[in-house]
Amino acid sequence: MAQTDGAADIDRTFMALALEEAEAAAARGEVPVGAVLVDGSGAVLARAGNRVEADADPTAHAEVLVIRAAGAARGRPRLPDTTLYVTLEPCVLCVGAIAFARVGRLVFGADDPKGGAVVHGPQFFTQPTCHHRPAVVGGIAAERSAELLRAFFRARR
Amino acid sequence: MAQTDGAADIDRTFMALALEEAEAAAARGEVPVGAVLVDGSGAVLARAGNRVEADADPTAHAEVLVIRAAGAARGRPRLPDTTLYVTLEPCVLCVGAIAFARVGRLVFGADDPKGGAVVHGPQFFTQPTCHHRPAVVGGIAAERSAELLRAFFRARR
Repeated sequence: MAQTDGAADIDRTFMALALEEAEAAAARGEVPVGAVLVDGSGAVLARAGNRVEADADPTAHAEVLVIRAAGAARGRPRLPDTTLYVTLEPCVLCVGAIAFARVGRLVFGADDPKGGAVVHGPQFFTQPTCHHRPAVVGGIAAERSAELLRAFFRARR
Repeated sequence: MAQTDGAADIDRTFMALALEEAEAAAARGEVPVGAVLVDGSGAVLARAGNRVEADADPTAHAEVLVIRAAGAARGRPRLPDTTLYVTLEPCVLCVGAIAFARVGRLVFGADDPKGGAVVHGPQFFTQPTCHHRPAVVGGIAAERSAELLRAFFRARR
């Protein structure tokens, strides 16, 4: 997971946008997770926060929403030139979406021991039934991402 | 997985609808998988076949489409009273959608050793990071489902 300083700066910049989406999701009463999908030239293709409750859609996770939006905009379901930034380790639904979309690179924030599927649980990208493995970088802006989630669940208890 | 004969007859009836959706998907050039979502009274809430290519949406698997449609129609993302019929063992994306939607019962057709996530690969419903486990019945109309898939991929080779 070693990166040059320049690449790490770029990752932190896009993760800051994903964190804005997570904050906006929290303000709507959604679990605060945000995502940004960026193409190879650094253009933002889509950004979104969770909309499970707003859309009454159990699949409306931030990662799925940006992948759907970019696929629809391009008219193609596969997005191999893209990097997905997401504030939390993707769950089982989202690792599936990432693999099927052929996302080239995944950058995530906080680990999710309870529901993550990249470095926890099924660790899907290591499974023989996974047919596309993105490059993966974790731990970018992890503390801010985790704090948003802690504050959200603290307020609901 | 033992069932009464009456329940098995009902399962075969709904699976026949799911197979119709799979056949329609094949006719559109999509991987032939179909799904039907049924409520506790036996009413069909939604039916769909794969629409990945038609919608340029890598998440437009039949299972995801019926869950999204039913959530939107009811205005609720959780569907605990439902049974999902699908012609093929669900993949990692779809087991996530099923768990998040709190689908009560899953009935599938053919096993999918290459991409399945119920009895193959991550076997997600057995993972500690899975927070909802439906009742599962497999092998209903499995031969017809598998033949549709074989014919589809044979024609593309």
